[in-house]
Amino acid sequence: MSTAGVEGKRARIVLAHPEPRSFVAAMADTARTALTHAGWRVTVSDLYRKRFNPVASAADFRNRSRPDYLVYPLEQRHAHAQGSLDPDIEEEVNAVLESDLLILVFPVFWFSTPAILKGWIDRVFLSGAFYGGRRVYDRGGMTGKRAMIITALGGREHMFGAHGIHGELAGGMLRHLQQGTLGYVGFEVHEPFIAYHVPYITQTERKAMLERLETELAAIDARPLVSFPSLENFDAQFRPLGEAGNTED
Amino acid sequence: MSTAGVEGKRARIVLAHPEPRSFVAAMADTARTALTHAGWRVTVSDLYRKRFNPVASAADFRNRSRPDYLVYPLEQRHAHAQGSLDPDIEEEVNAVLESDLLILVFPVFWFSTPAILKGWIDRVFLSGAFYGGRRVYDRGGMTGKRAMIITALGGREHMFGAHGIHGELAGGMLRHLQQGTLGYVGFEVHEPFIAYHVPYITQTERKAMLERLETELAAIDARPLVSFPSLENFDAQFRPLGEAGNTED
Repeated sequence: MSTAGVEGKRARIVLAHPEPRSFVAAMADTARTALTHAGWRVTVSDLYRKRFNPVASAADFRNRSRPDYLVYPLEQRHAHAQGSLDPDIEEEVNAVLESDLLILVFPVFWFSTPAILKGWIDRVFLSGAFYGGRRVYDRGGMTGKRAMIITALGGREHMFGAHGIHGELAGGMLRHLQQGTLGYVGFEVHEPFIAYHVPYITQTERKAMLERLETELAAIDARPLVSFPSLENFDAQFRPLGEAGNTED
Repeated sequence: MSTAGVEGKRARIVLAHPEPRSFVAAMADTARTALTHAGWRVTVSDLYRKRFNPVASAADFRNRSRPDYLVYPLEQRHAHAQGSLDPDIEEEVNAVLESDLLILVFPVFWFSTPAILKGWIDRVFLSGAFYGGRRVYDRGGMTGKRAMIITALGGREHMFGAHGIHGELAGGMLRHLQQGTLGYVGFEVHEPFIAYHVPYITQTERKAMLERLETELAAIDARPLVSFPSLENFDAQFRPLGEAGNTED
């Protein structure tokens, strides 16, 4: 974690909800306000408002490395090296690279993100800059930065956990996002903020949730981090190092 | 599982890959051929070819139940009841409803589906027809139908499992899709077909993978099913029933 003063810290909030007056949009507003009050310089990318294109395709690359056969990560590296990324991707990439903290704010759709946010990841988390080869987890391109998920769902908290009908939420259903995406590229990931049962509760209860979010974000530097694998425990082919201490690397 | 003769069985393959000549597209072709030879009536939806729109939004609904505030599942139920679903959604919904078997064929992007397929789920798995209230898992709208994932990734098999760097793949990273999506709406879900390390292996090895897929699909009726929660073990609020035998429902 950076020891720099909070004054210079930058946060990027990425919001994905189809209803501008939604509770999720209100959580993004609350996050912006709370972090700004805590001294962060905050920018927000509202993917629905900007009609972000979520479809990774050949159309993303003007000047292909392999015009005959699309290997998406290969073209990402080529375009990034050439400075020929599509402007809509480049803007998002630069904002993440310039930030110390990335916050994803979305409603749970099918125990994952809405497609518009999934496609933001598909297109923005560039092979090369974000990850590649052994540059994953604690050697990923985003090491030194932090990330956090802020989300809402209809389900109740008792539906999750070891004995819940759906099993674990953050560590289970959302593991593809917390570990497989944010952790994979090197972010330190704070415990998520999860608003349960939102469509079925009162406005008073929703307001209390926003106040809790504001309080918790004011103390984000002390918020616990999720645990991820360390490359130190795996060999050059990502095989677990045995207890005998295989130090091949 | 249905005991009807295989002659009448219908399969729907949904393909999502940005390169038409990809190995993943070849897996979809192999699946179509193998199932057709086994007597299935097969249709294929190639989401990239048809430029499927993956963004769930207010634009999906011509005649809103609540014009002032978008609640996406509410509008899905309203549009489905009215017969006013967008034609691109309605075609996909009807194809799934008319099929006995749904097969999703895609490359693993960020331990999940490409956004175009995530958005197909967001828009096509309708509240009401597919799930709703207590109509989930073994009471979901798709009970009596089967589903299966066919996917490819760059990672090697030893990177997954209890001691692998990424943890479990099908039961872990992909649990949001296998259980949280397909199982949730009531499909019986076959064990997935996973092609590992595809970009780094030889053409001969890839050909052998397609042959294995063909053989395995010829015997799909005997393919093991993934285990999901049963509503019988949970009360009306989805709380686990105690050992004392709370039969409230």
